[in-house]
Amino acid sequence: MKYGIAIFPSKKVQDEANSYRKRYDPHYALIPPHITIKEAFEADDDMIDELVTELKYIANETEPFTIQINKVSSFVPVTNTIYLKVEPHDTLNELYEKMHSGKFPDNKQYNFVPHITIGQKLLDDEYSDVFGSLKMKDFQIEDTIDRFQLLYQLDNGSWTVHDSFVFGKESL
Amino acid sequence: MKYGIAIFPSKKVQDEANSYRKRYDPHYALIPPHITIKEAFEADDDMIDELVTELKYIANETEPFTIQINKVSSFVPVTNTIYLKVEPHDTLNELYEKMHSGKFPDNKQYNFVPHITIGQKLLDDEYSDVFGSLKMKDFQIEDTIDRFQLLYQLDNGSWTVHDSFVFGKESL
Repeated sequence: MKYGIAIFPSKKVQDEANSYRKRYDPHYALIPPHITIKEAFEADDDMIDELVTELKYIANETEPFTIQINKVSSFVPVTNTIYLKVEPHDTLNELYEKMHSGKFPDNKQYNFVPHITIGQKLLDDEYSDVFGSLKMKDFQIEDTIDRFQLLYQLDNGSWTVHDSFVFGKESL
Repeated sequence: MKYGIAIFPSKKVQDEANSYRKRYDPHYALIPPHITIKEAFEADDDMIDELVTELKYIANETEPFTIQINKVSSFVPVTNTIYLKVEPHDTLNELYEKMHSGKFPDNKQYNFVPHITIGQKLLDDEYSDVFGSLKMKDFQIEDTIDRFQLLYQLDNGSWTVHDSFVFGKESL
């Protein structure tokens, strides 16, 4: 089964992200707006049981923290993905490193750029239009993060939550 | 904010349910296949903090159990909803009662009929066709349930998981 690890921002931020995703992101219906901490990886039931224990330790070691979003950015020329750029944060980096070492498969593919995708798979012209107008917009988003989620992928490509991990609150 | 409580069956059952939902359920993209334990209810942040504590107690009091699905059924004439009928189970009933008493709002609207919706809002003719053919099908599904999920609704109608509660595993 394919698993992934992500943070859902608050409802307010999800609603704002969805106002763009609805038009510009074909993955709109597959998963709520999120910050990916660990990209899709394969795991069987035994392995996921082990990783769930690891994730509880990680959650208990982590304090709630505040993320900031000030602008949209894009992954052009690699892909035509437009995203809300989450400003770098030590805690995000630590979560990322912990989830790519030890018992976790090291499925790092790119540098870790924390973000909330709001548009992807756009044609070049459409991309330029949308990014051009969103780049002018001023975003001033602050959001408190106090948990992350382990998800698995269904055959239709959508993601279901397996487990949520609340910082400082997991029983071992 | 609007919250609800549901059980996601295993990936296998979700995939099977989705094979029908894709065609027959306009809510397909809003939430993974699920058994609703508590319909949507309003709660503010303070109230939900209290209810999260209650839900941890409930999860810790509950043992994993096995559900059985043997057939499709429908809510006609009330609504044209077609569902995988989950055979009655004491544990499901207990969860339902606990989540509609004490500190929980008692938002019971119908009798509790555990089910996984696979079609809804169908026109009468379409309903008759689909239900007629699904009724002939033999379902033999067994599934182990070891958790439930608290979800909240976004402005677009979709649901995001707030917290998962694993039976016997929550820290208080």
